[in-house]
Amino acid sequence: MRLTTPTLLLDKKKSLNNIRRMVQKAKENGIRLRPHFKTHQSAQVGAWFREYNIDAITVSSLKMARYFANQGWKDIMVAFPANVLEMDTMNELAAHIKLHVLAVNVETVEALAIGLKHPVQIWVKIDTGYRRTGVLANNHTALDTIIQKIKESDKLQFAGFVVHDGHTYKQTDVYAIQTIHNTSVYLLQLLRERYIGQFPNLQLSIGDTPSCSILDSLTGVDEIRPGNFVFYDVMQQRIGSCSFDDVAVCMACPVVAKHPNRGEIIIYGGSVHFSKDALPLEDSSVIYGRVVEFTNDGWTTPVNGIDLVSLSQEHGVIKASPEQFEKYHIGDMIGILPVHSCLTADLMRGYMTTDGEILEHLSGVPQRELEIL
Amino acid sequence: MRLTTPTLLLDKKKSLNNIRRMVQKAKENGIRLRPHFKTHQSAQVGAWFREYNIDAITVSSLKMARYFANQGWKDIMVAFPANVLEMDTMNELAAHIKLHVLAVNVETVEALAIGLKHPVQIWVKIDTGYRRTGVLANNHTALDTIIQKIKESDKLQFAGFVVHDGHTYKQTDVYAIQTIHNTSVYLLQLLRERYIGQFPNLQLSIGDTPSCSILDSLTGVDEIRPGNFVFYDVMQQRIGSCSFDDVAVCMACPVVAKHPNRGEIIIYGGSVHFSKDALPLEDSSVIYGRVVEFTNDGWTTPVNGIDLVSLSQEHGVIKASPEQFEKYHIGDMIGILPVHSCLTADLMRGYMTTDGEILEHLSGVPQRELEIL
Repeated sequence: MRLTTPTLLLDKKKSLNNIRRMVQKAKENGIRLRPHFKTHQSAQVGAWFREYNIDAITVSSLKMARYFANQGWKDIMVAFPANVLEMDTMNELAAHIKLHVLAVNVETVEALAIGLKHPVQIWVKIDTGYRRTGVLANNHTALDTIIQKIKESDKLQFAGFVVHDGHTYKQTDVYAIQTIHNTSVYLLQLLRERYIGQFPNLQLSIGDTPSCSILDSLTGVDEIRPGNFVFYDVMQQRIGSCSFDDVAVCMACPVVAKHPNRGEIIIYGGSVHFSKDALPLEDSSVIYGRVVEFTNDGWTTPVNGIDLVSLSQEHGVIKASPEQFEKYHIGDMIGILPVHSCLTADLMRGYMTTDGEILEHLSGVPQRELEIL
Repeated sequence: MRLTTPTLLLDKKKSLNNIRRMVQKAKENGIRLRPHFKTHQSAQVGAWFREYNIDAITVSSLKMARYFANQGWKDIMVAFPANVLEMDTMNELAAHIKLHVLAVNVETVEALAIGLKHPVQIWVKIDTGYRRTGVLANNHTALDTIIQKIKESDKLQFAGFVVHDGHTYKQTDVYAIQTIHNTSVYLLQLLRERYIGQFPNLQLSIGDTPSCSILDSLTGVDEIRPGNFVFYDVMQQRIGSCSFDDVAVCMACPVVAKHPNRGEIIIYGGSVHFSKDALPLEDSSVIYGRVVEFTNDGWTTPVNGIDLVSLSQEHGVIKASPEQFEKYHIGDMIGILPVHSCLTADLMRGYMTTDGEILEHLSGVPQRELEIL
């Protein structure tokens, strides 16, 4: 198929390999893989996980939960502090599926206890070092209060503790990532010891793509929730989570202008396509993507001497060595691995596989009501 | 109406005032206002301009041109280097409307000359200092070559020269902006003198929101193409283009967690809602939005001591003084003026006016074929 506008290409074979490897690792560690679907947000990509007997998933909004519930997923965790304003949606979902929600504050638990009409699995979000949100692992006063309120509700079923170690994204060293992971597991196990008497089945759930990709041993928890690994991206390659060969999505962007005097190529592809997430380089400049060359059935690893260095709304600026500059002409499509595949996919609102198949993304389809049969 | 998820509010009265002022300024300067519609991308907001007898508009993609052509707009400039891969769409549009395209390279002109089936207005994009794209104003060799190729085509009608002074966005000083503007007008007038003999009707078109908002005199050109002024935002207030009272869009985001120990409030509202465009502060930190308080019919100017300081995919982190922190509770909606309204609108895919009316955004509606009657 002839491409004419910015298009997000997806190499299904690479993505299936990424899924297979993570399934295998979970199996070897004897833990459940509850993949985060916020990266792909696609009915069809979600279906690929079913072939590996995955039946429990993670999402980051109730809108996403409804979308995947409509696709037949029955066990969904919304890994985001419960938005009590969406009580109606939670009730709608909880009537049909096993819905898991998160709480950080006792006020959230109180509102849920009043508003919920159906049983819901509730997890307490723990902060073991990322410092975005969650109860500090040693704040027993807050934890005791929250868990007591959960116990008092006949709708809330305490499931356990969840952590997201987002600070692994700042690391590029396997030992640093191992240390972050060990700290989280240690703190979670202390919490398990403290509450196991009251809740013999309480579970521990962690889940960031760097830890789950890089570390071989993930024992000590019951569940992992990585998401980005389904596609990976330039940021994950930098961290060490994957090789460039594993990156399963690639932007194709038209060349619309060339500036020989400064070695810059202008593409149709800007912040409304890539997002503004940038990768800092050692010289304190940043890039927004790495350029690859298209092959018969996909693309190469990144080429040196050519990078996406600037983005405005629809324009991208590619800086190229004289040798690379000569390769591209007005009207060519240029391939670019995105820095952050989750945000690029959200903006692109759909995929074209390297076999020419169109796959949907939640952000590109009209919102539907819950239509579970 | 009760809001439950991140929502982009639009104060129609403020937006109409912003439009009225720009129309008035164009009138006083005796020049055409060809507003850029990439900021709002909304059929209904576009219609507000019709009341001021605006009949020529600017967009940044052919997709956007088709959307507004379907809304009855008949004179549309795509202010982006022509993407020759979309020749079919250009032909489709040019058969029905007065379509204006831009060229930076002679290769683009050659491809257009071969591919176009209907007359198209072509403008040469000039770089007068922004250094994103455009022919340098003193590069007469390139300009002569491009213009000669245009003359040789029976489909291409040379309309004149366009400039976008995007470097005004980096300024906060009226004299700096005046200097940038004067430079562009001076360089454009030299080009007019050079080519007026061959093209007696050639036009000069400029258009960035800071110049058009801040400067009183815009004489010396034929047309201005500002876009952001329809909403403005925190970045434009910082530049000096508007006051906070003029900012016509405001995000409403649910409070989902609170961290009293560090004075941080977590909102449902992240980079998939706001975009990652940040405003640098003097201490080299950045903010992603300014917090306001809701009133009966809109919102206040920003409150001190509380800012949106961090974004991940769905989470936003608000840093608040103890006094501000106490004002917000789990389940409240919090108001935030966006840093860059164009990107926020593109992500939010729709608006709710302060009167409760829902307005569409191109990115939130299914793409349609050209259906001009």
